Amino acid sequence: MSETADLLFTHVRLATMAPGAADGYGALEDAALAVRAGRIAWLGARRDAPPARAEHDCGGAWMTPGLVDCHTHIVHAGNRSDEWEARLNGASYEDIARAGGGIMSTVRATRAASVENLLAQSLPRVARLLGEGVTTLEIKSGYGLAFEAEARMLRAARAVAGHLPVRVLTTFLGAHALPPEFAGRPDDYVTELCERMLPRLAAEGLVDAVDAFCERIGFTHDQTERVFQAARGLGLPVKLHAEQLSDQGGAALAARYGGLSADHLEYLGQAGIAAMARAGTVAVLLPGAYYFLREKTEPPVAALRAAGVPMAVATDCNPGTSPMTSLLLAMNMACTLWRLTPQEALAGATIHAARALGLQGEIGTLEVGKRADLALWDIARPADLAYAMGSNPCRTVVNGGVVRAASCVTSFP
Amino acid sequence: MSETADLLFTHVRLATMAPGAADGYGALEDAALAVRAGRIAWLGARRDAPPARAEHDCGGAWMTPGLVDCHTHIVHAGNRSDEWEARLNGASYEDIARAGGGIMSTVRATRAASVENLLAQSLPRVARLLGEGVTTLEIKSGYGLAFEAEARMLRAARAVAGHLPVRVLTTFLGAHALPPEFAGRPDDYVTELCERMLPRLAAEGLVDAVDAFCERIGFTHDQTERVFQAARGLGLPVKLHAEQLSDQGGAALAARYGGLSADHLEYLGQAGIAAMARAGTVAVLLPGAYYFLREKTEPPVAALRAAGVPMAVATDCNPGTSPMTSLLLAMNMACTLWRLTPQEALAGATIHAARALGLQGEIGTLEVGKRADLALWDIARPADLAYAMGSNPCRTVVNGGVVRAASCVTSFP
Ligand SMILES: [Zn+2]
Ligand SMILES: [Zn+2]
Repeated sequence: MSETADLLFTHVRLATMAPGAADGYGALEDAALAVRAGRIAWLGARRDAPPARAEHDCGGAWMTPGLVDCHTHIVHAGNRSDEWEARLNGASYEDIARAGGGIMSTVRATRAASVENLLAQSLPRVARLLGEGVTTLEIKSGYGLAFEAEARMLRAARAVAGHLPVRVLTTFLGAHALPPEFAGRPDDYVTELCERMLPRLAAEGLVDAVDAFCERIGFTHDQTERVFQAARGLGLPVKLHAEQLSDQGGAALAARYGGLSADHLEYLGQAGIAAMARAGTVAVLLPGAYYFLREKTEPPVAALRAAGVPMAVATDCNPGTSPMTSLLLAMNMACTLWRLTPQEALAGATIHAARALGLQGEIGTLEVGKRADLALWDIARPADLAYAMGSNPCRTVVNGGVVRAASCVTSFP
Repeated sequence: MSETADLLFTHVRLATMAPGAADGYGALEDAALAVRAGRIAWLGARRDAPPARAEHDCGGAWMTPGLVDCHTHIVHAGNRSDEWEARLNGASYEDIARAGGGIMSTVRATRAASVENLLAQSLPRVARLLGEGVTTLEIKSGYGLAFEAEARMLRAARAVAGHLPVRVLTTFLGAHALPPEFAGRPDDYVTELCERMLPRLAAEGLVDAVDAFCERIGFTHDQTERVFQAARGLGLPVKLHAEQLSDQGGAALAARYGGLSADHLEYLGQAGIAAMARAGTVAVLLPGAYYFLREKTEPPVAALRAAGVPMAVATDCNPGTSPMTSLLLAMNMACTLWRLTPQEALAGATIHAARALGLQGEIGTLEVGKRADLALWDIARPADLAYAMGSNPCRTVVNGGVVRAASCVTSFP
């Protein structure tokens, strides 16, 4: 590189997470990284660094790609700590349902909230993630379950990036649960969703991908396929909540539609794994929900690894089954509960999470040409990111080459 | 109260955690709390508030007693993420031991560190706890295992309070592991510990309580009793790492010596429970270690509850089995993994944790006369503290009546 860079990070240790590194991390000590026009222009040994108009001394910190949380329901109103407390005090699921609890309580609160109100409730949660080095975030709809309420959720999701330094991808999850208006008529709801809701939301530019909850207590394989066909007709990529509680063949269905990801996967079988491997569909692992629900059936991590299916790790931030706003904690859980290695956990929150959003050409590794979304960490080695529980060693976050103290990422009006 | 207060907290919702409240929390909405000379001088309905020289509008936040982390090994050098990573990559415990891993690697690092160095490594961990509303902290020795190194650990623990706004209680845990110098001669080490180390450390004013690790891989029941006798001779209270991996009768032994607490307790039997109930010994639950070690045997929470044994919850912050610096996360784990109620978890980090340190007359509840160690939270209800994972809703921390933004508690030179 002969041109002068805008900014040079020096005195830094890189974990590039680029594919093919022998150590898995692509570790490069005593390194430097140059940014030009918001992108990574060069990286290598410090002594070979190109000239730059400005320098940022990293003081020996580790640098990774900015983290990517590729599965969240972080935009919603209210929380469900009241029913969680009731359950811990002995209330049954039936008691809670009779009292109007469960997902429908979040649907009621979310339907009643304006875009501004949804945003006000969601920004503190998003800020918490960003303070830990997250630079890209997926946000799903799915608590509106009707056109206007789904639109408000997605508009709030789009508005997040106007308030906090983060790139947001939106996912339409109208097929999250059956709204009461369609009780007993799930196929009619899927028709409404495919023929009216999704096309109008997509036309408004609110939808980056389409998702569904394929489960006995959600939507059937066939209903899910109708949603995927509607997405295909609109040129939108798909992903799926699949095999969380039972094997519905959802992962294979997602793979058949070239799905970006299949998510949860505790009950995934060998056929689904093979289909995902062939299609390049990412396995998004969500240990927060498994932990919070005290599930016992683990996703087939060893088989996914053996088949070469890329594994991502995400928070699944949601009020009912994973009230979690720490991607580092999700990484710890993936290692502790499911025996991912710390390297796999970090890849799951960077390169593979980027792929789960279709952004693998743009973010997720430290490679020349990619967007300069970076995180700087006060750690001894990359494994520390997944090892510590409740720690936040993030010192600095960089979004498109713009440097911010981690503590400042979390402030907003 | 007729005298003018120094400071009045208004527009606040109190969870007093005082004993006997019907709701368990002692919740008082639209309340106020007055401080005089660093202590709680009055609390009640806002309209009845006494005059005060200054007012702090809490904006509707919830106030709890400052949190108390009553079991930590937070002063230590190095971490063990390297061996954790090696194990996740397939290394056996034998491989790790051969490579010099395990607790002895922390002992080597800690022995090599100066007081200043121990402090520099430990303050960021302590700061993390304090930013979540912790105002009192117990810190154990036990990685020195020789007089000078144990003294350095305890001096570093004492020095913490000179750098960060926290009250620290120190515990001498010389009987944590057998140092290599005494290999094969555990009784000789216990003699050294009882006759030389402990008396000298106590004479230096470095010891608030005495602890031991009573376990097949630690010290026997009889060796533990010798340590307790030495403590009694010096007028020091005792506590014990008991029944973590097997039932050694440790909890009953601690109770017999009027122990402040017995800690871990996964293998505690009915006799131990009864002895603790009689003696008023607190059960300190440490879910972080259980989680991180993937243990399957749960402590007998229901039996402890039925027997009226007070249950505390702590982080057990240590590099080998619980690299955790979030007491809120420990509270979540106590509820999620062991079915404590959110109220029990909060009592476990306030009133009962105070009792585990012998400070129940001084801190742990919002009651007139107690020290004004307080935490203010942006939450909808007290259950939110244990419910959310990776969130930190702490807005303000108050130490002895001195108000600090939570984010400022964590800054130090
Ligand atoms: Zn989800
Ligand atoms: Zn301990």
